[in-house]
Amino acid sequence: MMREDLSKETLNLHRAFRGKIEIASKMPVDTEEDLSLVYTPGVADICRAIADEPEQADELTSKGNMVAIVTDGTAVLGLGDIGPKAALPVMEGKSMLFKKFAGVDAFPLCLDTQNTEEIISIIKALASTFSGVNLEDISAPRCFEIEERLKQELDIPVFHDDQHGTAIVVLAALLNSLKIVNKSIQHTKVVVNGAGAAGIAIADLLLYAGFTDVTLVSLEGVVEKGASWMNSRQASMAERTNLKGVHGGLNEVIVGADIFIGVSAPDVLSKEQVQKMNRDPIIFAMANPIPEIDPSEALEAGAAVVGTGRSDYPNQINNLLAFPGIFKGAIDKKVRDITMDMKVAAAEGISRVVTDEELRPEYVIPSALNKTVALTVAEAVEQMVSEKEECLV
Amino acid sequence: MMREDLSKETLNLHRAFRGKIEIASKMPVDTEEDLSLVYTPGVADICRAIADEPEQADELTSKGNMVAIVTDGTAVLGLGDIGPKAALPVMEGKSMLFKKFAGVDAFPLCLDTQNTEEIISIIKALASTFSGVNLEDISAPRCFEIEERLKQELDIPVFHDDQHGTAIVVLAALLNSLKIVNKSIQHTKVVVNGAGAAGIAIADLLLYAGFTDVTLVSLEGVVEKGASWMNSRQASMAERTNLKGVHGGLNEVIVGADIFIGVSAPDVLSKEQVQKMNRDPIIFAMANPIPEIDPSEALEAGAAVVGTGRSDYPNQINNLLAFPGIFKGAIDKKVRDITMDMKVAAAEGISRVVTDEELRPEYVIPSALNKTVALTVAEAVEQMVSEKEECLV
Repeated sequence: MMREDLSKETLNLHRAFRGKIEIASKMPVDTEEDLSLVYTPGVADICRAIADEPEQADELTSKGNMVAIVTDGTAVLGLGDIGPKAALPVMEGKSMLFKKFAGVDAFPLCLDTQNTEEIISIIKALASTFSGVNLEDISAPRCFEIEERLKQELDIPVFHDDQHGTAIVVLAALLNSLKIVNKSIQHTKVVVNGAGAAGIAIADLLLYAGFTDVTLVSLEGVVEKGASWMNSRQASMAERTNLKGVHGGLNEVIVGADIFIGVSAPDVLSKEQVQKMNRDPIIFAMANPIPEIDPSEALEAGAAVVGTGRSDYPNQINNLLAFPGIFKGAIDKKVRDITMDMKVAAAEGISRVVTDEELRPEYVIPSALNKTVALTVAEAVEQMVSEKEECLV
Repeated sequence: MMREDLSKETLNLHRAFRGKIEIASKMPVDTEEDLSLVYTPGVADICRAIADEPEQADELTSKGNMVAIVTDGTAVLGLGDIGPKAALPVMEGKSMLFKKFAGVDAFPLCLDTQNTEEIISIIKALASTFSGVNLEDISAPRCFEIEERLKQELDIPVFHDDQHGTAIVVLAALLNSLKIVNKSIQHTKVVVNGAGAAGIAIADLLLYAGFTDVTLVSLEGVVEKGASWMNSRQASMAERTNLKGVHGGLNEVIVGADIFIGVSAPDVLSKEQVQKMNRDPIIFAMANPIPEIDPSEALEAGAAVVGTGRSDYPNQINNLLAFPGIFKGAIDKKVRDITMDMKVAAAEGISRVVTDEELRPEYVIPSALNKTVALTVAEAVEQMVSEKEECLV
């Protein structure tokens, strides 16, 4: 479809349905008896059971399968700070996808405040209604503090999808890409271009998964010890990345790299830079809608595997592959936190959906619409949780 | 069903379905094209349209049909302060009924705070996601301040159902009962027993609807000018009620009354007291589950019409007759406030569902399950809004 036609059709569709989600009843309420069972007076017994034993709420109410999708509308898609009302269509879209792919109920809450403390206290006050919190499209650095504080203060899992969802899918795609180029995690050099929330989360997860040589770089230059422009997150990453102490910018760090991961801006990677990389370079150029390098140029320059954020090129790195399944696994297991091990397990789950027979440079990651992914991810996460539980016994 | 069987069945039912509500998608998302229309990249056009013109959110998202059911769990049914988690089954029940009877989507938000200012600021921060706020089961006097402040500070309607829903249904039942006993609004003496949130709201609405002789009484005594035990709401009502200046308690004010409305406690009205009322007394004994007087005793004592809060007696005064329709009318008309005129219109709408042919002492109010009520109420409310709008033109 042409851009203009798409715009018209999407507007018509949203107007016709008046948004994308609705509340549905799971039980009938047609007779006096139904009413007495689901509402007064019968409901009082459910209330009492939960008052006596609060964890019963997970079994007796919708809480056990309900996730809050929370945003303040400050970092929405490529649109930036468009506010809570304008962010709602994206959050409703995520809600649909949670249900469609993992059977998880997810309700969008768009907050009309950008105050970190207020956002934290609102989410804490709402936690009785939900079994998980998916933070979404909240701008850095507030997203870091909000997530960290909530992880400490809540007993339900909190997950900032823009950071960790992206990181999980990147790791999944890398695991399969490395098979194609016959390289190992331990001996590859990774450049992450873009040192914002997503870039930092990607670097962090890759290090946890066993990558050893990771360098973060932004327009300001390489994330390295002592650089004056860095925020506290970047300074902390500088302790664990760029171990060879390269100075400069992308042009310097790209030399000899095996993997380029772009979460930055359009057209910032040149063919010449790709040609300076190690043999069989892997390029994930995820800037949207215009990638860091056009996939055809990357291939011409010798890239062995190319992925983007777009559905109209091969190997779309799409968060949709991660968030439904990871939340399903987390809430089914009633975990307090989504750990690094669970994220790695999720990535391995996604990568396994592409079998060795199917694996090829144009297919290192399943389609975003592949219905087996979410359940495979949920199973992988649940198995990881079970293994950890057994270790503790 | 026996009490114990009901309890077992309601627990089994809630456990089997894992609560009563879920999130459903209104559009399909099966193909790449679907995904591009409802999520990225198409959704960006919806975001932009709303960013440009925020009121478009009512048409392009679920906001336009979405009500928040907000409680802090401090005054739930007859159970009292059971907390937010234990309150959730009731709020889910209301959500089902909103959808079933008026097609309105309503999402329960159970807040883990009892701080008035915090509750107000949370609801204000969430208002971008909703078109109306149904306050529920929040204890007095905080419920008054929360509702008043939100009415001033929000541009979407806020309605404390325990107060106004009850008042509307009582007025509806009274309008029909007065036809049976052939008395007029202007010349009847009303006693409201119970001077809490519901009692005050009932007295307030009856006065607005044209009743002139209304007296509020509580266990502490008659609400009257100068009484030392009253809160500010009661003091304000004392200016407009008990115009004949009766002192004492229920025993004194019941003499010669035409209407007794009980929102108080079990068995506080005696047969002897009913016998002291004017001819053909109307008794609405709504304490739950045990009414202020047993309906059979009230009838023996000469009552012409008896209603209760229970479904197993005739004339159940049930809020379910009001809230779905009044919210549907309010959000369809996008009103900023649910006014007294709209409440009276809603009551008249409910009363009209019982035709003159059907009207009899055992049937002054439609069944809670009557499916025509909510739409009749919504139409009555919408017509009232339209008339007011025309007056302003």
